[in-house]
Amino acid sequence: MNNQREALQRKKNAILVDGVILNGPVADAKAGEKFVEEASKIIMEEVIKKAADVTEKVCEWHPPEKLKTMLDLELKDTGETHQRLLQFCQDIIRFSVKTNHPRFFNQLYAGIDYYSLAARFITEALNPISLEILPELYLFCSFLSSCSRQICCFSTTSLCHYSVKKAASFLGIGTQNVYFVKSDERGKMIPEELEKQVQRARKEGSAPFFVSATAGTTVLGAFDPLDEIADICEKHDLWLHVDASWGGSALLSRKHRKLLQGIHRANSVAWNPHKMLMAGIQCCALLVKDSSDLLKRCYSANASYLFQQDKFYDVSYDTGDKSIQCSRRADAFKFWMTWKALGTSGLEERVNRALALARYLVDEIKKREGFQLLLEPEYANICFWYIPPSLRNMEKGQEFWEKLNRVAPIIKERLMKKGSMMLGYQPHRGKVNFFRQVIISPQVSREDMDFLLDEIDSLGKDL
Amino acid sequence: MNNQREALQRKKNAILVDGVILNGPVADAKAGEKFVEEASKIIMEEVIKKAADVTEKVCEWHPPEKLKTMLDLELKDTGETHQRLLQFCQDIIRFSVKTNHPRFFNQLYAGIDYYSLAARFITEALNPISLEILPELYLFCSFLSSCSRQICCFSTTSLCHYSVKKAASFLGIGTQNVYFVKSDERGKMIPEELEKQVQRARKEGSAPFFVSATAGTTVLGAFDPLDEIADICEKHDLWLHVDASWGGSALLSRKHRKLLQGIHRANSVAWNPHKMLMAGIQCCALLVKDSSDLLKRCYSANASYLFQQDKFYDVSYDTGDKSIQCSRRADAFKFWMTWKALGTSGLEERVNRALALARYLVDEIKKREGFQLLLEPEYANICFWYIPPSLRNMEKGQEFWEKLNRVAPIIKERLMKKGSMMLGYQPHRGKVNFFRQVIISPQVSREDMDFLLDEIDSLGKDL
Repeated sequence: MNNQREALQRKKNAILVDGVILNGPVADAKAGEKFVEEASKIIMEEVIKKAADVTEKVCEWHPPEKLKTMLDLELKDTGETHQRLLQFCQDIIRFSVKTNHPRFFNQLYAGIDYYSLAARFITEALNPISLEILPELYLFCSFLSSCSRQICCFSTTSLCHYSVKKAASFLGIGTQNVYFVKSDERGKMIPEELEKQVQRARKEGSAPFFVSATAGTTVLGAFDPLDEIADICEKHDLWLHVDASWGGSALLSRKHRKLLQGIHRANSVAWNPHKMLMAGIQCCALLVKDSSDLLKRCYSANASYLFQQDKFYDVSYDTGDKSIQCSRRADAFKFWMTWKALGTSGLEERVNRALALARYLVDEIKKREGFQLLLEPEYANICFWYIPPSLRNMEKGQEFWEKLNRVAPIIKERLMKKGSMMLGYQPHRGKVNFFRQVIISPQVSREDMDFLLDEIDSLGKDL
Repeated sequence: MNNQREALQRKKNAILVDGVILNGPVADAKAGEKFVEEASKIIMEEVIKKAADVTEKVCEWHPPEKLKTMLDLELKDTGETHQRLLQFCQDIIRFSVKTNHPRFFNQLYAGIDYYSLAARFITEALNPISLEILPELYLFCSFLSSCSRQICCFSTTSLCHYSVKKAASFLGIGTQNVYFVKSDERGKMIPEELEKQVQRARKEGSAPFFVSATAGTTVLGAFDPLDEIADICEKHDLWLHVDASWGGSALLSRKHRKLLQGIHRANSVAWNPHKMLMAGIQCCALLVKDSSDLLKRCYSANASYLFQQDKFYDVSYDTGDKSIQCSRRADAFKFWMTWKALGTSGLEERVNRALALARYLVDEIKKREGFQLLLEPEYANICFWYIPPSLRNMEKGQEFWEKLNRVAPIIKERLMKKGSMMLGYQPHRGKVNFFRQVIISPQVSREDMDFLLDEIDSLGKDL
């Protein structure tokens, strides 16, 4: 009643411009708050509480065309009711892949970290722009761009992440000026081959300036021998970049940090806490050994209309002009929260446990009939084939490999349609399709490793 | 009691690898869920419910050095209790600038959109990788990179966003190959000047290929005359890109879309729904007029280990290989939710109301003593000086401008220390420091416009 009277009063005093009433806010805050509250309840029940439950499906698969008809995605002239919008929220959650599920093994990230998640909710609610930590590719691009582009080249192994090739393309260096360095059968760069490529590049009139080594490759989880590579870079005065996006987190483990022996000699290191340390997509750091204000020299456009120098506080805290992007989300806070919650020792325990589980799985694969490791893993990637009974006694000739190549895609299809597990597969360097199991989350247990092998066998034994 | 017995039993059956117990998940899901629940309550009370309250401070300012001592930011070996972590959440929120506040006028984004916020919480909880909509700068960079880089140049006005210059630098085109086109006193590109620059570039041996026009400049909110620019681009066979990051949302208003007359002739358009349409940082679209699979041709690295072609569904839905970045957040969903909630007509009303409020403010500025418009605005940026009484009768010579230049920074400092309002200022094109008021959010009312002018007068009249 009072509300009606108020509204009437307001209308009476209304100031109209272009037919629009300008008095008072038009956003209905109470209804909006209620909506967010209802949506938050759905998130808690349907996403967060189910994240710990292995009996839930990891995905409810439907063909994209069918999903389109099941979800009313069309945008219309008029809006929808809150009730209907909340139903959308339910549906979107229902049909999304549950990357939080203990049996989501599909990517280099997985699981739920409650601290990071709370911090991410805070970041979304505050909606700030922060410029502390940048997505690796862009920083990586841009410090490269500060180097000479006339005659230059850079070296990397053929197993490096595809972003290296892309960066060379975008920066105008040209993919033809990327010299790939041979790696051994485990995927590790061979230092002698790097030396050879540097010599070759010089002979061809190029001016090598940059070497990208990898600590933890995407598929095999291989670590390049950084110390020996650093020797060569020092000798030839080359910038050593280490892409430790995936493997860098091993530095937190006193037991496993030897994988990165020599990383202190790198000029720059890329590291993604959103992978092994579960900070949530995306949280990427570029660490640069520099005391010359390199970032500022590379990125600053001196946009005085955005970065005023006559502010009343120390403007060196304004990091905006040291980054490529202008508007950026605050991606550091969420990882800070997890680190604060667990402490360095807690992060170390997580890494140690993931790698111990990987070790357990490797031992099980060796014991079980029909499973074959591609190679002894160094890290949390376990690459293996499942060989169905029908192929076990076949000679390992062309027919065998062609048939084996079709096994992983079919099992993956069955896994997704059943919704019991998400697991990646790919061909790689002449090896036919194999599974890549990645272990990250503390929700995962030894029982899940047993389930993984049982489930593959159960879904693939008829092939 | 039962829990203890279970734990004991589990320990008995424990499988140890490298001294780590592998049985059962080690993450304490119940405690984690409780933590997220508690943090969510704080977010609702301290951020969301306060967003509608003008009596709250828009910021609680402390010098960065002092903030460092007030917040315990240090990362330690051991973790913290939940209680202490929740206190951190409280503190972080307390000392953050409230971009949701009705009187946050500092940026090209502001306010709270409850639908987008709910969708953002869902996105964070699901933590998916999606690749539907890309940050403008990178897409922008990369389609440029697909063009010839040998001899090339591109044209833009000197008022364009600084990202254009940066892009030319990163792509190896070189900032010296960016030809700036003169604009008129309102900041709009002068078509005849564009024609001249194209001729000049050709004479100098360059091969112009790209024109970047702006629809809604950052400071003045100016719109380039797109139709006339398109004529020149057609004549010379140049790619026309329109940076409509800020101004593109005017297309949703039948009343105001004439600002972008001719945009249908652009080859590409950048648009940020996170600005005028409040989708939350960041949500950026690049629209390209193309039927040749340009994005795929530009970005694809054919990384078969990531984008398998032998999947059991239509892989054209896998957009990953059409983007620069690999791991990306799902930035489209949040804007979809707002659009779905309000309908196209609801978005139109928002744009119309923001521009009507801008019109109201302009009229008030004209009426009030001591306030002076820089120029008649076209959009939601209102640029003006506040001239304190001591300067009102002074001759407009060098002394006057030098003194006026110091006024805005001092008032801004006082506003921040009081916490009543956030408002940007900058010098621009030979004009000394002036305020730039930006109107976006439906929380904002006519009363806030009156407050804005009263507050500046009240805090600045002694200067």
